Amino acid sequence: MKVGIIGATGYGGLELIRFLHNHSEVEHIELFTSSEADVLFSSKFGHLANIMDTPLQKIDEAALATLDVIFTSTPSGVTSELLPPLVGKGAKLIDLSGDYRLKDPRSYENWYGKKAAPFDLLQQSVYGLTEWNAPQIKQATLIANPGCYPTAVLLPLLPLLKEQLIDSQHLIIDAKSGISGAGNKPSQATHFSEANESFAIYKANTHQHIPEIEQAIAMFAGVETAISFNTHLIPMTRGILATSYAAMMPNVTEAQLIDCLQATYEKHPFVRIVTEGSGIGTNRVKGSNYCDIFVKVDPRTNRATIASVIDNLVKGAAGQAIQNMNVQFDLPQTTGLDVVPFFI
Amino acid sequence: MKVGIIGATGYGGLELIRFLHNHSEVEHIELFTSSEADVLFSSKFGHLANIMDTPLQKIDEAALATLDVIFTSTPSGVTSELLPPLVGKGAKLIDLSGDYRLKDPRSYENWYGKKAAPFDLLQQSVYGLTEWNAPQIKQATLIANPGCYPTAVLLPLLPLLKEQLIDSQHLIIDAKSGISGAGNKPSQATHFSEANESFAIYKANTHQHIPEIEQAIAMFAGVETAISFNTHLIPMTRGILATSYAAMMPNVTEAQLIDCLQATYEKHPFVRIVTEGSGIGTNRVKGSNYCDIFVKVDPRTNRATIASVIDNLVKGAAGQAIQNMNVQFDLPQTTGLDVVPFFI
Amino acid sequence: MKVGIIGATGYGGLELIRFLHNHSEVEHIELFTSSEADVLFSSKFGHLANIMDTPLQKIDEAALATLDVIFTSTPSGVTSELLPPLVGKGAKLIDLSGDYRLKDPRSYENWYGKKAAPFDLLQQSVYGLTEWNAPQIKQATLIANPGCYPTAVLLPLLPLLKEQLIDSQHLIIDAKSGISGAGNKPSQATHFSEANESFAIYKANTHQHIPEIEQAIAMFAGVETAISFNTHLIPMTRGILATSYAAMMPNVTEAQLIDCLQATYEKHPFVRIVTEGSGIGTNRVKGSNYCDIFVKVDPRTNRATIASVIDNLVKGAAGQAIQNMNVQFDLPQTTGLDVVPFFI
Amino acid sequence: MKVGIIGATGYGGLELIRFLHNHSEVEHIELFTSSEADVLFSSKFGHLANIMDTPLQKIDEAALATLDVIFTSTPSGVTSELLPPLVGKGAKLIDLSGDYRLKDPRSYENWYGKKAAPFDLLQQSVYGLTEWNAPQIKQATLIANPGCYPTAVLLPLLPLLKEQLIDSQHLIIDAKSGISGAGNKPSQATHFSEANESFAIYKANTHQHIPEIEQAIAMFAGVETAISFNTHLIPMTRGILATSYAAMMPNVTEAQLIDCLQATYEKHPFVRIVTEGSGIGTNRVKGSNYCDIFVKVDPRTNRATIASVIDNLVKGAAGQAIQNMNVQFDLPQTTGLDVVPFFI
Repeated sequence: MKVGIIGATGYGGLELIRFLHNHSEVEHIELFTSSEADVLFSSKFGHLANIMDTPLQKIDEAALATLDVIFTSTPSGVTSELLPPLVGKGAKLIDLSGDYRLKDPRSYENWYGKKAAPFDLLQQSVYGLTEWNAPQIKQATLIANPGCYPTAVLLPLLPLLKEQLIDSQHLIIDAKSGISGAGNKPSQATHFSEANESFAIYKANTHQHIPEIEQAIAMFAGVETAISFNTHLIPMTRGILATSYAAMMPNVTEAQLIDCLQATYEKHPFVRIVTEGSGIGTNRVKGSNYCDIFVKVDPRTNRATIASVIDNLVKGAAGQAIQNMNVQFDLPQTTGLDVVPFFI
Repeated sequence: MKVGIIGATGYGGLELIRFLHNHSEVEHIELFTSSEADVLFSSKFGHLANIMDTPLQKIDEAALATLDVIFTSTPSGVTSELLPPLVGKGAKLIDLSGDYRLKDPRSYENWYGKKAAPFDLLQQSVYGLTEWNAPQIKQATLIANPGCYPTAVLLPLLPLLKEQLIDSQHLIIDAKSGISGAGNKPSQATHFSEANESFAIYKANTHQHIPEIEQAIAMFAGVETAISFNTHLIPMTRGILATSYAAMMPNVTEAQLIDCLQATYEKHPFVRIVTEGSGIGTNRVKGSNYCDIFVKVDPRTNRATIASVIDNLVKGAAGQAIQNMNVQFDLPQTTGLDVVPFFI
Repeated sequence: MKVGIIGATGYGGLELIRFLHNHSEVEHIELFTSSEADVLFSSKFGHLANIMDTPLQKIDEAALATLDVIFTSTPSGVTSELLPPLVGKGAKLIDLSGDYRLKDPRSYENWYGKKAAPFDLLQQSVYGLTEWNAPQIKQATLIANPGCYPTAVLLPLLPLLKEQLIDSQHLIIDAKSGISGAGNKPSQATHFSEANESFAIYKANTHQHIPEIEQAIAMFAGVETAISFNTHLIPMTRGILATSYAAMMPNVTEAQLIDCLQATYEKHPFVRIVTEGSGIGTNRVKGSNYCDIFVKVDPRTNRATIASVIDNLVKGAAGQAIQNMNVQFDLPQTTGLDVVPFFI
Repeated sequence: MKVGIIGATGYGGLELIRFLHNHSEVEHIELFTSSEADVLFSSKFGHLANIMDTPLQKIDEAALATLDVIFTSTPSGVTSELLPPLVGKGAKLIDLSGDYRLKDPRSYENWYGKKAAPFDLLQQSVYGLTEWNAPQIKQATLIANPGCYPTAVLLPLLPLLKEQLIDSQHLIIDAKSGISGAGNKPSQATHFSEANESFAIYKANTHQHIPEIEQAIAMFAGVETAISFNTHLIPMTRGILATSYAAMMPNVTEAQLIDCLQATYEKHPFVRIVTEGSGIGTNRVKGSNYCDIFVKVDPRTNRATIASVIDNLVKGAAGQAIQNMNVQFDLPQTTGLDVVPFFI
């Protein structure tokens, strides 16, 4: 397979390279960017010396036409214009940005404050939450790879909502992310001295992943809901932990929640249900494509605490994108992704 | 004033020393410990060379009898036995542990798994949440200094609950703490390589600060409630951020919440209401006795997101203890505590 | 005293504010900047709410003329033009930048790549290494506050060189700094995700503090030498540790080095000689104006390892600047600076 | 191949598992420990759930006899007694501890303060610095895998010393390591709150890797020397950067040093010579088996600054151990190790 990456210099692009390098079916990787063309990639990213010495290319339709898959890992507002001419030209398109996730263009424009992608492509695009949408993903020409927070939130909540084990209303989701989620562009908020040794809430009640989560709950669990969702920056590089709070439906037990999760993900290699201990941490999944889920019901309030952890750059971005590529090409989902988490 | 610190080698003790060193009314500090007596304190803690070269003393009632104030900064289960003989012997007692906070000894025994302090002393002790209990603190012989999480949670919630601006039921509090909250005793969970670059939920639904928060809500806001409360470890040393979620009472607006908070804390130098931006971080208060509060109501869910930040070792421990001492001795609350937060 | 800070929004400026706020003789602080005038300072830096609510002012000679002291904490290349009109207008000038440290303008132009300050002012300025230059500092109109690395390097080396206990030639100095030393301007190298969890050597053999160190060795120890000096970035915010290597002069012992250092700094409150243990760390001095020094002679090579630690923003910048102001105004050197290091 | 790991619960053991899991020729891994037998490994290390669910076994000679390779990753002083009965029983032995590195048992006893391994085995063991000793490694029954610091130091210095391009005397090596180098056992020095945000020198002039480095210089470069060597703890988990200082031999240029290094390592996939920029950082090699080398000669002192970076747990431990196994079994050295560094 010949693979292209547009936006190769971002963190999503770098993670794609990290995993595609060890993907047994990928024989060729081409790197594209809107700027800095003709620079050797490894001269810009020294850690890739001898590994990825190919030049960065300008985005060029002819070059792209020869590829089997194109990953676009760009800021929001780029692929809405960039991808339309590429749809249907042969390559599978996997977009890691938020531009093709929301079916309703007005919702995109409200939450992102940018012009939406063409309406027909928004309808045509397939939401790439692999564990929940594999049949559609397999057929898709254009995949909207899920956001990092939505991935962490949806994997634990969807089965419980679908089976009506927890109350779909009054969901409160308190999410925390490592700073790599903010991308590679320097800013005051991500300047080391100011981000280090501080933990902050940001975009209170206004994060653009809110409509994505609600849309996926409607799509996969069949319920409409308005969630409370807040996001926080953790002074570390990688990892998301989402803590979700939901009222239990009448007569439902903790054991039923766990059974439901285990049954749902029994055959899914990247979702693990943790049944021991009094908590979980992001180091369980660091550097890997796993999503680990922990559930504890509070008998005092009859409310479930549902914690989930992912590596935001892997299952929350590049890893899931490759998992989707594997589905599209009928490969085992673990191809190129079967790595051991770092732990430390 | 002559001051003693029992448990001087812990982080609470070290912070007491840091602030008492610059307290204009404290002329003498004695340091006590249950072990390692006769060691020069600065030979154990090199950062205190030339600053605190006094020897560590064994706990001795005669030596303690000469003091005006005794701070006890020990693990839970120690002062329940240590303090009874000292009560009424002249010195003001300020206990930073959890042993005298819960009025109901059965609750203590359930949540702490240890034997409670004597019943009469539990009733006699005064909860040292300075901004809410100053008249009682002024008269108290024995102060139960609040826990770090309760301090961060109660300061924003109490005014809003007391004024019935938010629904007292269904409160969900998602709290996060730097690792210094776990104390100075090495363990696997606080071993650098395993705590670093990981964010974890721990003691899900079972943290011993839950009954303390509920008791204080009943005491100061007059309502009984069962809260959902979860705690997380942040890979940094200092700081707590608590994110609380509450439904708005009918027809209440965000502006009313902010007005209520501003009015409540107008004359309290250590509580600041933040009205700009889309969030706050712990670096606003690092190293200081401030508690900063941020409120944002989500019009989609009519639920308030209430974030508060403190330095867990200062307003959450040593700083508030000194603030209470100041109240007891009729000093300005800011005496010895008027320092600028570190920010970086 | 009325004090002004030009460049208040940088980290040096913020640290000046942190200490001047608790300085008993400073009654008034004015804040100046070349941009963003008329903004309330605390609206830009929320941690200073209720503490420093004064507006940022444009740099204005009339306003500056009313002040007793002006600190300039700006990038190199600014005060070379900014200060000349202010010299001799009444206020003591303390420049935290590198613009007035090197007596030889060609050296400045070589190492900094910028135009040097006027020759006569370079000659007139007094190097503010407080422990070594107090008599001159007391008389000075214009003080060149030392660089962070030079402060950490010179305090241990000067006495040993002056007393000819170590070989002044072949000095090798391996210095490491926390990232706040790079200032507050975002860049790729100081972007959290890229600086975090990495340790790097930078500006190998070319750091602009090299000529400053050599000049001070000549000035205070009376020897000309060319040093090997390299700098590294530590993934933490504050702190410098410099490890210096020097051959012992014939028949000199480790005890003589320690005696020399102790004798030199006996009456200097901010320099501490550490004689226990097998090393020292920057947490001994964090947040304080101390410089701690540790010496160990290797009998295998007859070479001394000399380690010193400072907080780069305090003794390496704002703290030493205030110490110099204290000298100029005949105050105890510890005025406003007598704080306990953070340790954690 | 069937592989056993003794000391599987340490960080070296965990990294062996991480890489062996993706090693194409390893079909079976058994885990041994001196304690905690019969525990499921993944119940102790949750990040390995579904990956390494095998039980920990007690060390048992019969079980060990069935293996092709045994890695021992234990603290010093363990394999000196544990390995002798296993030598010559069929399995290749690769010891990651320091017990078989020093040929002179008195040197071991001096530097480690423990009883040395049997003299004949010390002579028989082969030093596993792969790039310099492959022919011997291929024949070896017992490999002494190099220490982390020696690996980082020797790879850049050996070629330059062997070719007499730098002065072998007066070598000064200033080394810095992430905290994972201290192992997984909690201690005050590695307690998060005390290690975080501090940089420290430790074991000044007395680190046990000194004789190992000097022995290897003698062995591979043919010169006797006594080095100055100091070690520092970086507040991060993974990575070593060693900064070495050497006087240039007469008329040698920087270009010659670089040519020598490039020629030496041209066919060695894991050593990369960096010729751009003004420095290098550990993030170039994080999580990988690379050693990157950077050289800059200072024309002012005619001394070379030689910086090298490795991941202490990979090229400095588990990665090089597997590289040695590959050599022994005639596999490409990159088998199982061809991963892309993390960078962030």
